[in-house]
Amino acid sequence: MKDSHSKTPLLDQVATPDALRRMSDADLTALAGELRAEVIDTVSQTGGHLGSSLGVVELTVALHAVFNTPVDKLVWDVAHQSYPHKILTGRRDRMHTLRQKGGLSGFTKRSESPYDPFGAAHSSTSISAALGFTVGRDMGQPTGDAIAVIGDGSISAGMAYEALNNAGAEGRRLFVILNDNEMSIAPPVGAMSRYLSGLYAGEPPARLDELASDINQNLPATLREGVACVRELAGGLTASGKIFEELGFDYVGPIDGHDMDQLLMVLRAARVRATGPVLIHCCTVKGKGYVPAEASDDKYHGVSKFDVQTGAMAKKAASAPSYTSVYGKALRGMAAQDPKIVAVTAAMPSGTGVNIMAEAFPDRVFDVGIAEQHAVTFSAGMAAAGLKPFCTIYSTFLQRGYDQVVHDVALQGLPVRFAIDRAGLVGADGATHAGSYDIGYLSSLPGFTVMAAADEAELVHMVATAAAHDEGPIAFRYPRGAGEGVELPQQGEVLEIGKGRVVEQGEDVAILSFGAHLGVCRKAAALLRAQGISTTLADARFAKPLDTVLLAELARDHRALITVEQGAEGGFGSIVLHELARQGAFDAGLAVRNICLPDRIIEQASPEEMYADAGMTAEDIVATVRIALGLSEDAPSLDAAE
Amino acid sequence: MKDSHSKTPLLDQVATPDALRRMSDADLTALAGELRAEVIDTVSQTGGHLGSSLGVVELTVALHAVFNTPVDKLVWDVAHQSYPHKILTGRRDRMHTLRQKGGLSGFTKRSESPYDPFGAAHSSTSISAALGFTVGRDMGQPTGDAIAVIGDGSISAGMAYEALNNAGAEGRRLFVILNDNEMSIAPPVGAMSRYLSGLYAGEPPARLDELASDINQNLPATLREGVACVRELAGGLTASGKIFEELGFDYVGPIDGHDMDQLLMVLRAARVRATGPVLIHCCTVKGKGYVPAEASDDKYHGVSKFDVQTGAMAKKAASAPSYTSVYGKALRGMAAQDPKIVAVTAAMPSGTGVNIMAEAFPDRVFDVGIAEQHAVTFSAGMAAAGLKPFCTIYSTFLQRGYDQVVHDVALQGLPVRFAIDRAGLVGADGATHAGSYDIGYLSSLPGFTVMAAADEAELVHMVATAAAHDEGPIAFRYPRGAGEGVELPQQGEVLEIGKGRVVEQGEDVAILSFGAHLGVCRKAAALLRAQGISTTLADARFAKPLDTVLLAELARDHRALITVEQGAEGGFGSIVLHELARQGAFDAGLAVRNICLPDRIIEQASPEEMYADAGMTAEDIVATVRIALGLSEDAPSLDAAE
Repeated sequence: MKDSHSKTPLLDQVATPDALRRMSDADLTALAGELRAEVIDTVSQTGGHLGSSLGVVELTVALHAVFNTPVDKLVWDVAHQSYPHKILTGRRDRMHTLRQKGGLSGFTKRSESPYDPFGAAHSSTSISAALGFTVGRDMGQPTGDAIAVIGDGSISAGMAYEALNNAGAEGRRLFVILNDNEMSIAPPVGAMSRYLSGLYAGEPPARLDELASDINQNLPATLREGVACVRELAGGLTASGKIFEELGFDYVGPIDGHDMDQLLMVLRAARVRATGPVLIHCCTVKGKGYVPAEASDDKYHGVSKFDVQTGAMAKKAASAPSYTSVYGKALRGMAAQDPKIVAVTAAMPSGTGVNIMAEAFPDRVFDVGIAEQHAVTFSAGMAAAGLKPFCTIYSTFLQRGYDQVVHDVALQGLPVRFAIDRAGLVGADGATHAGSYDIGYLSSLPGFTVMAAADEAELVHMVATAAAHDEGPIAFRYPRGAGEGVELPQQGEVLEIGKGRVVEQGEDVAILSFGAHLGVCRKAAALLRAQGISTTLADARFAKPLDTVLLAELARDHRALITVEQGAEGGFGSIVLHELARQGAFDAGLAVRNICLPDRIIEQASPEEMYADAGMTAEDIVATVRIALGLSEDAPSLDAAE
Repeated sequence: MKDSHSKTPLLDQVATPDALRRMSDADLTALAGELRAEVIDTVSQTGGHLGSSLGVVELTVALHAVFNTPVDKLVWDVAHQSYPHKILTGRRDRMHTLRQKGGLSGFTKRSESPYDPFGAAHSSTSISAALGFTVGRDMGQPTGDAIAVIGDGSISAGMAYEALNNAGAEGRRLFVILNDNEMSIAPPVGAMSRYLSGLYAGEPPARLDELASDINQNLPATLREGVACVRELAGGLTASGKIFEELGFDYVGPIDGHDMDQLLMVLRAARVRATGPVLIHCCTVKGKGYVPAEASDDKYHGVSKFDVQTGAMAKKAASAPSYTSVYGKALRGMAAQDPKIVAVTAAMPSGTGVNIMAEAFPDRVFDVGIAEQHAVTFSAGMAAAGLKPFCTIYSTFLQRGYDQVVHDVALQGLPVRFAIDRAGLVGADGATHAGSYDIGYLSSLPGFTVMAAADEAELVHMVATAAAHDEGPIAFRYPRGAGEGVELPQQGEVLEIGKGRVVEQGEDVAILSFGAHLGVCRKAAALLRAQGISTTLADARFAKPLDTVLLAELARDHRALITVEQGAEGGFGSIVLHELARQGAFDAGLAVRNICLPDRIIEQASPEEMYADAGMTAEDIVATVRIALGLSEDAPSLDAAE
């Protein structure tokens, strides 16, 4: 099986992690070198989460070498650092398909491999899941140890704390590896981060000291030297690990996460000796071993294709500005006019564009860390104090703060402005990152105003509208990626609340679009016109309050009405249907159809491909219109239509 | 203003908290005694959250005496302990209306008083909100200090940790009072609780020691004796307060929360000296000062009316068993048959009925504390390990774990069973506790099965159905309170997934009910029959998958179709409308109407009154049917109909 010409002679032997358990420690060190090169090479061709994967190369090798995966359950938190894991667990030959349609997920995924016992993508879930596996083991299920690997950013989220708190009290044998690279996506914030940093300087770690001496006495002689080495390293650091110990964990560390011998020693010792929950604090460097990554500010967190020699990333073709940057600039503009405007982000300052406002007004932008629950209620508190908070969170992550939106914002009618980025399907990050549900879960809340931007100019207007709206909570959603390329207004205009607009006037059929699918609807309207079907196209702008007058007119004046939205059933279409039922519009007959995300998971691809998969292309809209009109689904040729 | 015959001469002087600031410390101590008696007397007549309110009597007096409310913002976490606060802040004369229709809320509420700057009811929101107020103050808003009062149970939730983490890093002047009574509703669980308990025994608190000596040197001589007293108390306790200090807080305590002098001294000192965030750890006794409460297991957490002399509570009229107890017994029965069944609760073992299973299988019931996010993903982990978890959470609190339901359960298709208690309107706890949204937010998730129990016998079947369902996540919802009084089956039967049932067959109109409003629908059907309108009544059982065959038949065979559900728009009715649109059922006309919760907040009252307020009585259903049939809304007299 060995290829003498291969640059990766050891990696070539790894069909499954079993192979690692037969290698010498020296070979494992060498294997890590090959694996790192492979990761760099792979991601240079596919793009993806490079920095975090490079940070855990040695850790990944050591974990698979020491633990008996897949019987032992290795749960990667977020799992954007799982590329080395994928390469070692039988997916090497498919790495070139990473994050592409039909290819490997950029995260762990249960359906992809038995070595992925629990999928991830949102942060801070791993300890909860791992604790679940330990209970399964203790109740006789055929599962071994459970190991959660969680970053220092992810462990700052409340959910991880809840899990540590419960796991500490349960006292079951469980391994948590704290992968501490002092970076989440942005440099981490919050007191916990400061605490972890503090562990690098100070007195030697009492607990590790104890454990090390304990190990020293009880382990084979060959390991003793390694223990001494850890103690030496630790002597130069600090680490009471007090917080984790107070929560019921044995704390070990900090250890050097790029030192294979140290990793193997500590993991082996922990595996032999642990009776309860153990937290191993492992220090790593994001982007480790690839100079351009280590040198860059974001450590190549997420990259497009790049040149391995130079680190130069492939430039995207020039396109319209992104919705995110349009939002950031519009927000900065409004903030300059109104000193009460503040912005909140949950660890995504540049991802959400609030960094653009922060450049001008650093004291008015709050990065609370990965803490969406707090972000929402903190915003509510600021609103109660008379400020105008723009709580800026991706649709998929706002799900983390749902109860706070209901309980602290909506029930109190507080004027928090929700800027909801990444609404709808998002592409390579796949189903876990889809912003499918916000229209429905926000619109069912009394007093909420819910808008969606049809293009980036509309987004500018909606920022202005939200800033001016003090009567209650207001949200506006917009998609990932580049805008439509329309001209941007100098100044956003305050839209009339609850009023839509007719974009094109026709006679036969009405398409009522909510949000960024308007461009696709425009194309559908053109196709329909070419088939002799005169189409009115309207942009609802507001899902709530709904423009009931416009809706009644569209229903009255057309033979069919089609709603279109970039979201799941239960959102805009549902609001329209309920209103029509209330108006009695169905009683005498009304051909209405709803185009929305179907009731199944749409897998990763480009957003356009995902919407095609979802049955939401212009052609799909045309076919739906034809069915609603009682015509054959397939359009006749143009000749036939004329 | 003083009444010489009054038992409460000091309390009689308190129109607003200003009065407290003019009283001597001795009078404040006496006032606390009067206030306690008033709380006991009031709650004996109204019922309510007695134990926690009694625990904070002295603290409430001290806070209002020391801080300048309402300019200073006092934020009570959960706020079921706010009765003494309400009495002192101008609501004394309305306390007899507590938790009743049109009366005072059992929680704080912004619309009720300027002394309630931030409403509550769900736990762990106070620190986030208070931090928001401090930012407002620092940005020039007319608001003073912010003080969050949070219990030891509430501080174990992830959200509180997120807020502490952020507040510690922000470093703004902020007061957090940890009201530590070693009880949430049930005795608290988790490592944090163990940690807090540990603070009672051990070495004297370094931090308090420092602060006390610091205070000692800097405060007026009159206060010095008090400081010594605190130090003495603390000497008998421990308290590194390390966790809070690591998170960036100055830690003070633990102090005796029933010692007015100590409270006043520490609060005054903190108010004078604090420059950053301060956590004051205050030990209280739930039920303090009322012997029957102190002696009872749950410390009279929530009580019905009772006799002050004896503590005997008014017995409720014998009625059908509660849905909660029916669930608990059915679950215990299933657990006896299937060793893989486990149950999870988030600090509500008796509230959810899982304590009934725990009596028989204590090792298979997990109380994770107030930690719904973790509860859901922990359940998902157990499901991934091959167990059959029943994740048992009130509808309103499941909102806290929404993202975990989406990301960890639904997207992975894991067979977690969600038992959703308190679905729909819940009565005295009011709008914050309403379970309005679960039908919608669960049914939009691919692969979810969503059921609702029409009565308690149906609930037994649904427990069996959920236990047997290994194909993906499944949820069943049921209301608060007593069942319908129907006979309970010995053994639950496994229902066919996605099949509804016709309860009464008629001809003119079809009512399709989902869940526990079936009884009301039955009454409506009887009223309609009396008006000569023959009615089919069906119980959908499943919102998802919907019984599309039954739906098509009902639509085809009747002149009108009415959906009924105990939930907000965007739930069952929406699913039916979408399916009818998909089937083209509207094209030729179909009179359909949806009865669901209206788009406004329904305030506290009895559940029946709340549903009447919501327009969901049998008479409302009749009126809706008549409109759908094109008849006058008001029913003719019986004579006229015949």
